[in-house]
Amino acid sequence: MKRNISVKHLSQTPIEKQKVELVERKCIGHPDSLADGVAEAVSRALCREYMAECDGGVLHHNTDQGEVVAGESAPAFGGGKIIKPIYFLLTGRATRKFGDTVFATDAIAVNAAREYLKTTIPTFDMDRDIIVDCRMGSGSTDLCDVFNTKKGHTSVPRANDTSFGVGHAPFSQVEQIILGLDDYIANEFRPKNPMLGYDIKLMGLREINTITITVAAAMVDRYCSGISDYVEMKEKMEESFTKVAKKYTDRKVKVEINTADIIRKKATSVFLTVNGTSAEMGDDGSVGRGNRCNGLITPNRPMSMEATSGKNPINHIGKIYNLLATEIARESCQKVDGIEEMYVRLLSQIGHPIDYPLVASIQCITKRGYDFKEYQSEVEEIVNHRLENISDITRLVIDGKLKTF
Amino acid sequence: MKRNISVKHLSQTPIEKQKVELVERKCIGHPDSLADGVAEAVSRALCREYMAECDGGVLHHNTDQGEVVAGESAPAFGGGKIIKPIYFLLTGRATRKFGDTVFATDAIAVNAAREYLKTTIPTFDMDRDIIVDCRMGSGSTDLCDVFNTKKGHTSVPRANDTSFGVGHAPFSQVEQIILGLDDYIANEFRPKNPMLGYDIKLMGLREINTITITVAAAMVDRYCSGISDYVEMKEKMEESFTKVAKKYTDRKVKVEINTADIIRKKATSVFLTVNGTSAEMGDDGSVGRGNRCNGLITPNRPMSMEATSGKNPINHIGKIYNLLATEIARESCQKVDGIEEMYVRLLSQIGHPIDYPLVASIQCITKRGYDFKEYQSEVEEIVNHRLENISDITRLVIDGKLKTF
Amino acid sequence: MKRNISVKHLSQTPIEKQKVELVERKCIGHPDSLADGVAEAVSRALCREYMAECDGGVLHHNTDQGEVVAGESAPAFGGGKIIKPIYFLLTGRATRKFGDTVFATDAIAVNAAREYLKTTIPTFDMDRDIIVDCRMGSGSTDLCDVFNTKKGHTSVPRANDTSFGVGHAPFSQVEQIILGLDDYIANEFRPKNPMLGYDIKLMGLREINTITITVAAAMVDRYCSGISDYVEMKEKMEESFTKVAKKYTDRKVKVEINTADIIRKKATSVFLTVNGTSAEMGDDGSVGRGNRCNGLITPNRPMSMEATSGKNPINHIGKIYNLLATEIARESCQKVDGIEEMYVRLLSQIGHPIDYPLVASIQCITKRGYDFKEYQSEVEEIVNHRLENISDITRLVIDGKLKTF
Amino acid sequence: MKRNISVKHLSQTPIEKQKVELVERKCIGHPDSLADGVAEAVSRALCREYMAECDGGVLHHNTDQGEVVAGESAPAFGGGKIIKPIYFLLTGRATRKFGDTVFATDAIAVNAAREYLKTTIPTFDMDRDIIVDCRMGSGSTDLCDVFNTKKGHTSVPRANDTSFGVGHAPFSQVEQIILGLDDYIANEFRPKNPMLGYDIKLMGLREINTITITVAAAMVDRYCSGISDYVEMKEKMEESFTKVAKKYTDRKVKVEINTADIIRKKATSVFLTVNGTSAEMGDDGSVGRGNRCNGLITPNRPMSMEATSGKNPINHIGKIYNLLATEIARESCQKVDGIEEMYVRLLSQIGHPIDYPLVASIQCITKRGYDFKEYQSEVEEIVNHRLENISDITRLVIDGKLKTF
Repeated sequence: MKRNISVKHLSQTPIEKQKVELVERKCIGHPDSLADGVAEAVSRALCREYMAECDGGVLHHNTDQGEVVAGESAPAFGGGKIIKPIYFLLTGRATRKFGDTVFATDAIAVNAAREYLKTTIPTFDMDRDIIVDCRMGSGSTDLCDVFNTKKGHTSVPRANDTSFGVGHAPFSQVEQIILGLDDYIANEFRPKNPMLGYDIKLMGLREINTITITVAAAMVDRYCSGISDYVEMKEKMEESFTKVAKKYTDRKVKVEINTADIIRKKATSVFLTVNGTSAEMGDDGSVGRGNRCNGLITPNRPMSMEATSGKNPINHIGKIYNLLATEIARESCQKVDGIEEMYVRLLSQIGHPIDYPLVASIQCITKRGYDFKEYQSEVEEIVNHRLENISDITRLVIDGKLKTF
Repeated sequence: MKRNISVKHLSQTPIEKQKVELVERKCIGHPDSLADGVAEAVSRALCREYMAECDGGVLHHNTDQGEVVAGESAPAFGGGKIIKPIYFLLTGRATRKFGDTVFATDAIAVNAAREYLKTTIPTFDMDRDIIVDCRMGSGSTDLCDVFNTKKGHTSVPRANDTSFGVGHAPFSQVEQIILGLDDYIANEFRPKNPMLGYDIKLMGLREINTITITVAAAMVDRYCSGISDYVEMKEKMEESFTKVAKKYTDRKVKVEINTADIIRKKATSVFLTVNGTSAEMGDDGSVGRGNRCNGLITPNRPMSMEATSGKNPINHIGKIYNLLATEIARESCQKVDGIEEMYVRLLSQIGHPIDYPLVASIQCITKRGYDFKEYQSEVEEIVNHRLENISDITRLVIDGKLKTF
Repeated sequence: MKRNISVKHLSQTPIEKQKVELVERKCIGHPDSLADGVAEAVSRALCREYMAECDGGVLHHNTDQGEVVAGESAPAFGGGKIIKPIYFLLTGRATRKFGDTVFATDAIAVNAAREYLKTTIPTFDMDRDIIVDCRMGSGSTDLCDVFNTKKGHTSVPRANDTSFGVGHAPFSQVEQIILGLDDYIANEFRPKNPMLGYDIKLMGLREINTITITVAAAMVDRYCSGISDYVEMKEKMEESFTKVAKKYTDRKVKVEINTADIIRKKATSVFLTVNGTSAEMGDDGSVGRGNRCNGLITPNRPMSMEATSGKNPINHIGKIYNLLATEIARESCQKVDGIEEMYVRLLSQIGHPIDYPLVASIQCITKRGYDFKEYQSEVEEIVNHRLENISDITRLVIDGKLKTF
Repeated sequence: MKRNISVKHLSQTPIEKQKVELVERKCIGHPDSLADGVAEAVSRALCREYMAECDGGVLHHNTDQGEVVAGESAPAFGGGKIIKPIYFLLTGRATRKFGDTVFATDAIAVNAAREYLKTTIPTFDMDRDIIVDCRMGSGSTDLCDVFNTKKGHTSVPRANDTSFGVGHAPFSQVEQIILGLDDYIANEFRPKNPMLGYDIKLMGLREINTITITVAAAMVDRYCSGISDYVEMKEKMEESFTKVAKKYTDRKVKVEINTADIIRKKATSVFLTVNGTSAEMGDDGSVGRGNRCNGLITPNRPMSMEATSGKNPINHIGKIYNLLATEIARESCQKVDGIEEMYVRLLSQIGHPIDYPLVASIQCITKRGYDFKEYQSEVEEIVNHRLENISDITRLVIDGKLKTF
């Protein structure tokens, strides 16, 4: 059966030529990201358990819910203390019984959440700063609900809903800067500068040819001896972050760190935390309220409302189609010459095999000097091949090789 | 000071000419909508209390968080029972102490939530089907943090964040159908047909000139004597809903009710519930994961990720700018001739007065036969006037006259 | 089979001749009593449901756990407000599935708790002052675990544990005063004087021939216009309570109300509450930590550690034997002449029918002028008859005719 | 001022001559003991923090509440798994603010609870098997509420309540056996036999000269390869426990292990657990419902209803007088010749210094051949000296040198 793939030319002002562009990323320790990360960790742990016990099958579950309720802290230069732990509520539902096998869904969820937090925010004192609670629902699963993770057309799961997934490529300069900074911070800057915490909000605003990167970064108090230390770190960040940003653009770049700080003789108010996340002092978080699955919030681009994190990676369109649309756009722009910009929309049909969407709608802005007709079929092939191998997405998710936020 | 208002012409395929359009609405009893409604009810109750005690001032609070954890039920024709209550967790934070006044934030929150649920879903047995729990954070407020709700330039609050608000007008045919159906169901159909529950998902899919409205509607078991009753109701819904939809379009309309139902001699599986919401049996809900502030989810339109419900209506850009952008688009399209389609983006500057956005960017598709230049300044004036009177939004929200989801 | 009933003479100083006697009662609105009352209400509701669905059978359950976590309030003459609701956590476990029947254990528990609180403390605003949460465990029951509530030897349940139940009679003067006051307050004084709240601790201390009744009574602020009102009420209570106490004794009686009150011009600190219970402002409560099943705490008498409230009334020795021991002592002292004081101890044997205790040990102090031998066999008969009809206890409990705290 | 100490002769059948004696101990891993242990660990951690920050002062707190909500497990020979974690709810209240110092009461409580559980039940996987939640209340403290822990008459705290504390000595044979077994198991048997878990209920029943020790002991599945292993362990326990018991008595001793076990070819039901406590599969626990402060439940002896664990050790009579009464009895019987049995009752007067009880009532049964008059004053002196140094109790509690359950 032929897939309904529509690759069309799009005549629209490309992003780099729009006057205002806004791009945001909530890094790994932002309360919403913590919620996403925990939700995804729980889903992956459940998948692994189901596969181990059900000969590669994954049972029904969705853990794309949950709440991070902020704690209270008393940060202080040199090291303050957590007053009230952060409270994580795990919800969602997971199959608890299949045939005679009982799955330790609650214990697996609590364990996955705690392991994730321990690894992700090493500053947490897991026995003092964190409460992980669980009110996960359960249910038994019929034989026919088992999703097989092995390849082959017959076992392709059916869409759980009528829903869109969207993706785009390539990333604009601002998008690249934000993602590049996130990567640089996690892998280069923080390892050398532990004062920089985990809850960082990167906001890139481009007005014509000026890019302003506003960084709201929680500092870790135990690694910060005083206000001069703090100010020094901000200067260091400004300098290095500007250098990193410059790699992606020739435009004018301005980096601003913690602009809300007040540093006066009499009253000092800075973004100091005990563990490096604002969840410790007043900011709640929820699954699906932060980054989209490409790691960004991009109001200038089409976005999906669906939470990607925590949904089961087998038949949940809200997860799979968003990830797949992003992958399709990425691959096409890498392999095919002539695409200035590409938008992918995958629309499912509830109850139909997920490798046959109702429509895969691809819109392309063509680069100056190229002809849409010349690459159209090439893109079509990529889309078709990706749909044919849609279960790769499932695998990559379970193996933790695809980010969901 | 002149406001930075940019009204531009947009050349883009208008929505009605795009081949595929998807529009969704989660009606009042959907778990995500319940979360939104409760969050907003709590915020409004806090506003009223603060205003009463602080001479018209509103103190800092944000209740745009919270979780609906699904219960369990055993629906049955003629009337089943709730097995496990739905659990509502109220979180967020609110000022608890101001000067010597202590505010009963937790009690107000629990009360507002319960009152909202009682009124909204009259089928709930509030003493048996519902648990409302509260883990709201607190904090004291400095004098300068009091937001005055009285008019006047000097008292205009400052933006809490750098953020976008978006809105569009007019509504497409499918958008009108979805909103029209929601209204019809709530005010005409359900009052006469109590079998139709509160958790209804309306999904409108237009493929060129065919509009398919897929309705997933929870039925209330106590008003449904048996399967024939149920089937009859579905037929009645199909007929009346089609009639309503036809008012908004000349295109072909198809209405499909509860397509996942299985009605066979041996196995019957229908969307029957005790109280008329899927939150009673397995579906969790979260604030900010459902409808945008215009009541719709519209993947073909620019959307904001921000939760509108529960945020404070005084200085929270994520709430005010989304509502205002929508109002500006609505008013402009009503008053000004020649606009085919209009998109409004309001970008705030953290720390600056909210009536002076960094930029108010308006994009207009012009109707055939009209000239953009002729109405441009008229739109500009509307935008300017609306910004000047931005505190009207606050008032309307507190009075419950602006929907947030 | 003959029952192992041992009726013995006891030579011990009778209570009225001991120099110091202490008797305490935590009235209906004390946090511990609220916990007990809720636990018992939940158990009774479950019993009724099981009996209705299982042809008179009661399934396994124990709800003798649970916690009352205090709220916060801001009482004020004329009417204050609850700041933070009281949180009730229902725990324990109940059979949720029996054959194909699913029991709504969580919903029943929440409902029973809320109904109990509504009826017991009519001042509660149930939608604002109270959170009832539930984390009850579940389990399925084998056929053989069904307890039949119908009479007949074959169906006598087997003891769930090796445990003691204890009881005594008659009540001493101080005991009678405390119980008499409780009754008088609930049925005569409070109906006419709504200012007197529900959380009252009655402490009777007898030193030789002087009885001091210390009353700690929460006043309801909405019925108390000011400090003079309050003081007047205390005087009224002192007067009437003394009159009531005098009915039970010729000893000297002193009644002292709220002795910790400070009433000065500059600093006033009195026991004022919004709803009439200290659970609203700082005092937690637990099941089984308050009154024994005769309604009293009597350090001069043998007492059982077992919580009576919330335990299943079918085979839970900790409940049935305490109630039965008390009934046996009461009946014997009423019907049999010559008993000065009587102590009953019933010791179960785990796994044996509950009507055949390992030993029923009765100790009697004989009245001056009587002969133990003359009434010994009469007592034995009463004990035997009561054991034979042990299922009466179960019935009375389910019907709410036996108090458990 | 002379203390009101009354030492009297008691003519009563000594315990060893009573026909039936019942003694019980819930060992360290019983759900009620876990609740007690956690409550006491939290109180001690708070004391240490207060003393460190307030120059030796301890601020008001009471954590003698809290609930252990059972989890679910699937034990299996060789090692099973926890399905649902055990849920610990910490409640009570503690001073959170004193002057400008903020105390991390919630974080301290959670930390103390987790550390206690980790150390006490080393089989727990703390990241998977346990949820510790906290709903502790707070409050600020006036200067005059600080309890100084330094010696000296002026600083003696005042009684928080009118209440009894009771104690007795020496321990009967059965009491010695139960305590001796507990000690032997913890320090000798379990270290060598890790199969024996932590939740052990020791019940000693003496009928005239036959002592039956019934042991209900949770076995740890990972250390038990199969049913023969299990049976072997029971035999080993029976043998060694009998030997230990024999050290304390010449009476006939019978030890019975896990009498409810069913070991048949077709159906086997034994007391196997994953971690060695029944809290993992259905048994809840509460503070103050288990052992009295001497480590025992002794229905033949006077007992106090008061929870000792978790109460503040400074002015809470329910804690201090129970501990002190037990110490007084212990010391007197050790040092003074001629006492067969001794019962101590300390009665406080609310608001009066705790070293001046309303009455310290001591009752002594004199050994055959001794004269009460000869040792009366010696006992009086011990009582007086102990009351004079009552703050020693506080110190010992804070240092963890006095057991409370």
